[in-house]
Amino acid sequence: MDRTRLYRNGVLEAEGFPIDDVSEHVGDTSAVVWFDLCSPTQADLAKISEELGLHPLAVEDAIHSQQRPKLDTYDSHLFITVYATRLAEDELDFIEISIFMTRNALVTVRESSEFDIDEVIRRWDANADMAKFGAPYLLHALLDHIVDGHFEVLQVVDDRVEELEDDLFQNNSRDMQHVQRRTFDTHKKLVRLRRLAVPTREVVGSLLRRGEDIMDRGLTPYYQDVYDHTLRTAEWSESLRDLVGNIREAQVNQQGFRLNDIMKKITSWAAIIAVPTMITGFYGQNVPYPGFGQPVGFWVSTALIVVGTILLYRAFQKRNWL
Amino acid sequence: MDRTRLYRNGVLEAEGFPIDDVSEHVGDTSAVVWFDLCSPTQADLAKISEELGLHPLAVEDAIHSQQRPKLDTYDSHLFITVYATRLAEDELDFIEISIFMTRNALVTVRESSEFDIDEVIRRWDANADMAKFGAPYLLHALLDHIVDGHFEVLQVVDDRVEELEDDLFQNNSRDMQHVQRRTFDTHKKLVRLRRLAVPTREVVGSLLRRGEDIMDRGLTPYYQDVYDHTLRTAEWSESLRDLVGNIREAQVNQQGFRLNDIMKKITSWAAIIAVPTMITGFYGQNVPYPGFGQPVGFWVSTALIVVGTILLYRAFQKRNWL
Amino acid sequence: MDRTRLYRNGVLEAEGFPIDDVSEHVGDTSAVVWFDLCSPTQADLAKISEELGLHPLAVEDAIHSQQRPKLDTYDSHLFITVYATRLAEDELDFIEISIFMTRNALVTVRESSEFDIDEVIRRWDANADMAKFGAPYLLHALLDHIVDGHFEVLQVVDDRVEELEDDLFQNNSRDMQHVQRRTFDTHKKLVRLRRLAVPTREVVGSLLRRGEDIMDRGLTPYYQDVYDHTLRTAEWSESLRDLVGNIREAQVNQQGFRLNDIMKKITSWAAIIAVPTMITGFYGQNVPYPGFGQPVGFWVSTALIVVGTILLYRAFQKRNWL
Amino acid sequence: MDRTRLYRNGVLEAEGFPIDDVSEHVGDTSAVVWFDLCSPTQADLAKISEELGLHPLAVEDAIHSQQRPKLDTYDSHLFITVYATRLAEDELDFIEISIFMTRNALVTVRESSEFDIDEVIRRWDANADMAKFGAPYLLHALLDHIVDGHFEVLQVVDDRVEELEDDLFQNNSRDMQHVQRRTFDTHKKLVRLRRLAVPTREVVGSLLRRGEDIMDRGLTPYYQDVYDHTLRTAEWSESLRDLVGNIREAQVNQQGFRLNDIMKKITSWAAIIAVPTMITGFYGQNVPYPGFGQPVGFWVSTALIVVGTILLYRAFQKRNWL
Amino acid sequence: MDRTRLYRNGVLEAEGFPIDDVSEHVGDTSAVVWFDLCSPTQADLAKISEELGLHPLAVEDAIHSQQRPKLDTYDSHLFITVYATRLAEDELDFIEISIFMTRNALVTVRESSEFDIDEVIRRWDANADMAKFGAPYLLHALLDHIVDGHFEVLQVVDDRVEELEDDLFQNNSRDMQHVQRRTFDTHKKLVRLRRLAVPTREVVGSLLRRGEDIMDRGLTPYYQDVYDHTLRTAEWSESLRDLVGNIREAQVNQQGFRLNDIMKKITSWAAIIAVPTMITGFYGQNVPYPGFGQPVGFWVSTALIVVGTILLYRAFQKRNWL
Repeated sequence: MDRTRLYRNGVLEAEGFPIDDVSEHVGDTSAVVWFDLCSPTQADLAKISEELGLHPLAVEDAIHSQQRPKLDTYDSHLFITVYATRLAEDELDFIEISIFMTRNALVTVRESSEFDIDEVIRRWDANADMAKFGAPYLLHALLDHIVDGHFEVLQVVDDRVEELEDDLFQNNSRDMQHVQRRTFDTHKKLVRLRRLAVPTREVVGSLLRRGEDIMDRGLTPYYQDVYDHTLRTAEWSESLRDLVGNIREAQVNQQGFRLNDIMKKITSWAAIIAVPTMITGFYGQNVPYPGFGQPVGFWVSTALIVVGTILLYRAFQKRNWL
Repeated sequence: MDRTRLYRNGVLEAEGFPIDDVSEHVGDTSAVVWFDLCSPTQADLAKISEELGLHPLAVEDAIHSQQRPKLDTYDSHLFITVYATRLAEDELDFIEISIFMTRNALVTVRESSEFDIDEVIRRWDANADMAKFGAPYLLHALLDHIVDGHFEVLQVVDDRVEELEDDLFQNNSRDMQHVQRRTFDTHKKLVRLRRLAVPTREVVGSLLRRGEDIMDRGLTPYYQDVYDHTLRTAEWSESLRDLVGNIREAQVNQQGFRLNDIMKKITSWAAIIAVPTMITGFYGQNVPYPGFGQPVGFWVSTALIVVGTILLYRAFQKRNWL
Repeated sequence: MDRTRLYRNGVLEAEGFPIDDVSEHVGDTSAVVWFDLCSPTQADLAKISEELGLHPLAVEDAIHSQQRPKLDTYDSHLFITVYATRLAEDELDFIEISIFMTRNALVTVRESSEFDIDEVIRRWDANADMAKFGAPYLLHALLDHIVDGHFEVLQVVDDRVEELEDDLFQNNSRDMQHVQRRTFDTHKKLVRLRRLAVPTREVVGSLLRRGEDIMDRGLTPYYQDVYDHTLRTAEWSESLRDLVGNIREAQVNQQGFRLNDIMKKITSWAAIIAVPTMITGFYGQNVPYPGFGQPVGFWVSTALIVVGTILLYRAFQKRNWL
Repeated sequence: MDRTRLYRNGVLEAEGFPIDDVSEHVGDTSAVVWFDLCSPTQADLAKISEELGLHPLAVEDAIHSQQRPKLDTYDSHLFITVYATRLAEDELDFIEISIFMTRNALVTVRESSEFDIDEVIRRWDANADMAKFGAPYLLHALLDHIVDGHFEVLQVVDDRVEELEDDLFQNNSRDMQHVQRRTFDTHKKLVRLRRLAVPTREVVGSLLRRGEDIMDRGLTPYYQDVYDHTLRTAEWSESLRDLVGNIREAQVNQQGFRLNDIMKKITSWAAIIAVPTMITGFYGQNVPYPGFGQPVGFWVSTALIVVGTILLYRAFQKRNWL
Repeated sequence: MDRTRLYRNGVLEAEGFPIDDVSEHVGDTSAVVWFDLCSPTQADLAKISEELGLHPLAVEDAIHSQQRPKLDTYDSHLFITVYATRLAEDELDFIEISIFMTRNALVTVRESSEFDIDEVIRRWDANADMAKFGAPYLLHALLDHIVDGHFEVLQVVDDRVEELEDDLFQNNSRDMQHVQRRTFDTHKKLVRLRRLAVPTREVVGSLLRRGEDIMDRGLTPYYQDVYDHTLRTAEWSESLRDLVGNIREAQVNQQGFRLNDIMKKITSWAAIIAVPTMITGFYGQNVPYPGFGQPVGFWVSTALIVVGTILLYRAFQKRNWL
């Protein structure tokens, strides 16, 4: 499945040749080669690493998952780690992409096949005229695709936050717990995005700062564009965190409000029920109270119950306790 | 509806000519042209973009809503995105305004017709003598109008926050939930302003920093003035967030206070009601207690009920539980 | 009421002359003039502004209240806005003071007559020998007075915070709501101070940074001294915010504690009252239980009530629930 | 009680001479003099200030308590304010120490005699060979002693925080309120330390940055050492604030937990008590229910009470509500 | 137990020789020596310190535990303090490691034997070819091992946080208190890691910044690698704090939800129980109500009880209160 490409003077010359043919092309400075490795073993990487003179530390990082977006500069090449995102059935997955870039070669190492490298190839072909910018252009399209992926996730999270906001002032308690669970989960997703997606900003910013050392001047606006997107990712996720915080505080306030409401209802009904209890208690005494054992006692007792209950009910209703 | 203007040597020479006449004026360096496009299609922009040599990335950003105030510098022009605000029936809308500024042309692209470009034109005409500063002056009046719009929204939010503060220590519970909902909504508005209005500060600050590269020295104080306003927007919205936080914390404290209050009332009334219940329970026993079946039992029972109830009521009232 | 002064070579030469005499003195570089305007109209400022060559933007800011401490530098003069504070009957007012300073003139524009300019004059006269430093000295005394005013307000707020701390662990619930209201109000005052008093720091710091461009070297320590005071204002108000936060969290904890306490009391008393209710209920049954209709029933019932109640009461007391 | 010392060529030559002898020694550049003043009046400082040429603003600051650690640089001398700490009976006191340092003189002004200057003298004598570094060395030992004092206070606060943590999950409610009060008090102490002890860091850092302008190169590591201690003070107090926050949040959670727990207990017992009440209520009716007035009624009623009570008790115990 | 090593030209030449033989090797610039001291006394360090010319302040810091990761630069050597971590039975221990590094010597001082220095030796031997980089290489392996230790602890904390998240929405209340205790404890661990493990970042970063002054260029990527790990430690622990905060807020929400839930249940059952109480109270009156003393009274009473109870039960169930 590993993919390869060879560009010469900005034109795609060969594609899909075996990685073992690396040596033929690497020495040729007029050519730009690309190799893609999907979850490679140490042995897989050994050959390319030797041909391209990759630093053993970078190679080791590419094999072992290491969970931090970064840009390392070695004498003969750059080493980049970024994280692509994938939302599958509400689970947020991060796929580590390690990249080696030399003057005329780009090596991409994907942690798993779940990252859709074909989409990157489609982007390359859609702007084939830009292939003249060489490896930095290939890298640009890859980073652009990854950052677009972060956006898609943020869009889903944003929609979720809006749903939570809509549910917030509903009075159904089943929904309440659901809202809490979703709020918790949304916050968690944002924490993870902040750790693995947002720092892509520093990686791109740092590529941009090197400017013409590593890329043609005509590419700068394109990298600036990706950089803008990473800034937006950062601002957007910060903004969403703030909204989630807003939801949480509103939840706490809501619960306090509801508790007070319930307490008032309990109090009201307890008072209303206390009326007949008190009166029948009185008429249940074994002492000759007025009306003891006489029909008039029954009528008075019943009248007191009915009237007392109604009066209390109205009083509470007036104070909005019921 | 698209508006156009042509200034020559600081004097308005033509206005309302078709956008297709662009080419005639663009080459003329003694003239300053302005074009306004309202939610244009790709095709609409294509011509101008070609005439003025606008970068395709900037053109694409102008067409697609992209939600981030920014200033991009291209070789031959600046590209600015800012957001105008509109409060309609308590809904806060943002209208994206994209701006291209070359040496002698200003192109404004409005996302929707809800942004009142006529007001900007009125401002231009009110200070017609400043038209001698060219495109940067036109830009200034536009930014000034947009920032004034942010102020108007903040003023409304500020009034709202004061209302919330006034309602806070009212004891009416219906208002309580209303206050919570409004607090939530106000916080949300502030989060959005922080994301789309406050960063206008960086855009203006960045224009100011370039100084004489892009504008006449005499314009500097005017840009400084807009910059001051954007700083005030930032400080004001920060201050409002703080006040909303203050309101929220006070709400939580208030609810705690009220809950305690209600609990004390419940306890007091339950205790008061327990007195007759206990006594009539005693006199309801089928055992020959003192006064069983005798009038004296009735009088003692009734006396105990009345005295006990009054004593308890007074005791609770003294402790402020009722 | 508008005040004026003319210093020549560090000596007060004239005072109280009409503002219309401005032109006579302004051209004289050996003299330093001061004009004070209290809530002037546009017309009032027009003359001075023309004589001193003030920038129209600055003049406009001086007339319209604009709510932001700042220092603007124009070609021929500095424009400063600061806010004096006044606590009247627990209401915190801010009075905008706009200042124009040229090489040899100082113009102060007060928003209202509530700012006591006479106290500033007293300070000038108390250190008459420093008048040799010209306009920057006059400005120094004014800023010093304003910052001292901020201190007085902070001292009052500090005392208030200490009162709140003392009241915090009192058990009287009426005080509780009072404490909440005061806490809310104190926080609000601090937010406003932070917005309008604390940024005086940047204004003074910025004057200090220009150093010998605008003031004699001998004045530097005096400006440094005011700057130290503004730093202290900032630190103090930050510290007070922290203490208010501490009070608020303690309040929440206290309320939680009290609610638990009340719940325990309710539970205890409910349990104690349940004892006689249960027993008299038993003895009220119309079935021949042991002692039914016999004196022994009464004695047993009464004994059970007394003993049960006492035992429960002691048990709860031991667990500190009562 | 005021102490004085005269070092010549790093050797202590005289000590305890009257402050009035200042003039003899100050002019002698081969000597280093030290004067200590404890809560001096303006007059006390006047002479020294004249001899050493101290700036009147610094002298004024030394007399009036001013609550801010700082380092001011004047032409001929440095002026330093720092705060020594003292914990007496759980009260945290701060003692202001003002210091003037010229090339060959050190003047220390203590706000009160509670700061133990003798301990500083002991430190000087313990490292007598370092006296060759002159006034900066004397200053170093003083600052070192003051920062050590901050450490002692932090150690006590740290112990207190650990006690609070240990008490946190105890179930005794009296302790609960105690814990809250202590938490509040600890937070308050940390706020004050942050304001008056932590900024000593900036004072020492600023001395260090001037380096060889004011001190011999051999002293640098010693100042670096004090600086490290001030950094540790800052980090430690920050860490303690964090732990206090942790305790507070745990308290809130704990109270919520306990409240739920109490509510469950109340509910359970109320339900259990409701069983006999309901049954005896039934058997108390004046209608010929099965067993009315017959021994079988008594047995059935009693059996229902006992069985019902036991069943409910077990059910609640199983659900952990009791 | 103290270990020693002597490398010459990158080759291990001697090992385990007595520390007293130091002098023989220290003068030899072609050799690199390593000494390890485990909780040494002042006397133990005196000799080495004299031979290598270590600064007395650094030596003192190495002996006294001082609780702050730092890098001090002295004329002839670097002094480093870092903290190794150890999790034993859920207790987080920190072991202070002090390091002196001169051009050709490395001295490690361990606070306790619990830090496994043998593992560091194993690392040295595993990459024996790198010994040619001298003392900085030895230091690298040591720091790498310590930072790996921090990772292991963070991994355990991370697992713990996931467990807490899983338990969060369980309804078992025993677990609730357990979750609270664990949350508290996890937060505490993170605070301590932040204070003693995270600042290792500054130490390594500062070594890296000195670059070729202290290490061979070939070592830079290796130090960069450790630095990346320390950055990850910082980001990871920050991220975990955030997740713990998320858990805490969810707990508060959950408790509020459960309290409301319990209150509804209590209310419902109290209402249901009130039905028979009220009815049997009525039929227990000693007045001739319809059915008094007649079988029909019994049937009506019983019917009312059964129907009333069922109706209420269904009503509450429909509203989700049961």
